[in-house]
Amino acid sequence: MKKPVWILSSLLVLMPVLSSASDSLADKAVDYRQGVFSILGWNIGPMVQMMKKEKPYDKDIFARNAQRMATVAPMALEGFIPDSVTEDSDAKPKIWSNMDDFKSKMKDLETASSELAAVAKTGDMAQIGPKFQSLGQACKACHDEYREE
Amino acid sequence: MKKPVWILSSLLVLMPVLSSASDSLADKAVDYRQGVFSILGWNIGPMVQMMKKEKPYDKDIFARNAQRMATVAPMALEGFIPDSVTEDSDAKPKIWSNMDDFKSKMKDLETASSELAAVAKTGDMAQIGPKFQSLGQACKACHDEYREE
Repeated sequence: MKKPVWILSSLLVLMPVLSSASDSLADKAVDYRQGVFSILGWNIGPMVQMMKKEKPYDKDIFARNAQRMATVAPMALEGFIPDSVTEDSDAKPKIWSNMDDFKSKMKDLETASSELAAVAKTGDMAQIGPKFQSLGQACKACHDEYREE
Repeated sequence: MKKPVWILSSLLVLMPVLSSASDSLADKAVDYRQGVFSILGWNIGPMVQMMKKEKPYDKDIFARNAQRMATVAPMALEGFIPDSVTEDSDAKPKIWSNMDDFKSKMKDLETASSELAAVAKTGDMAQIGPKFQSLGQACKACHDEYREE
């Protein structure tokens, strides 16, 4: 079957866009998962500042950032493909020999960020505080075990 | 007012997590926006392969990836803070002197990815094709103008 013209033209358009096409799959996977973690870090930063009262609590921004974390957190695991410890990676190799535990810790991150996003909408600090703490613990648990410092 | 114990303990827990706390805001912004683009690239990759018939079309994965792109695309603009052209950045300085046009092109990306995500759920290639092409064009328009190659 002849490919429709739009398929060919859309792929021609995309060629220069995918400029990292020559990178190895491992490099792409590292870029991808680090991208997910950069988004998590960027969004939790102002939330920490609000909790520390270094900046005024803004319910909408806090809730938006919490929702973003909940949205991207489940995307991280997919980037931990086999043989993807590169020079740029901070992942400890034992991730792959403890994959069940690693997955469980990533699941904790998903749950904690999702639960924080839910209570963040209320603006009720009595609910937000403990969920924020759980999220911090979920981050830390995985970093302590599986991330090179 | 005394801070509740959970605030203090949650912040102590987070300290080692935010290990990039010493990076400049510009560095963090570059990491963040590059993170968003890494996620876009990671997700569009298999979609391109499906369109090129290099791998079988999988409706669910295609739709999931399109939805992820639609979800993270609106997060990118926030990373283009003033004075954030660093050594690691591929952003052309003229972004900041053409911010209205840049924002308009980023809006095109949001619209194109959102429209693709909507039709991707149908699995109907007659609808997906043109929207996929629009998304490719939205990527390319901005890269051509505002990204160092």
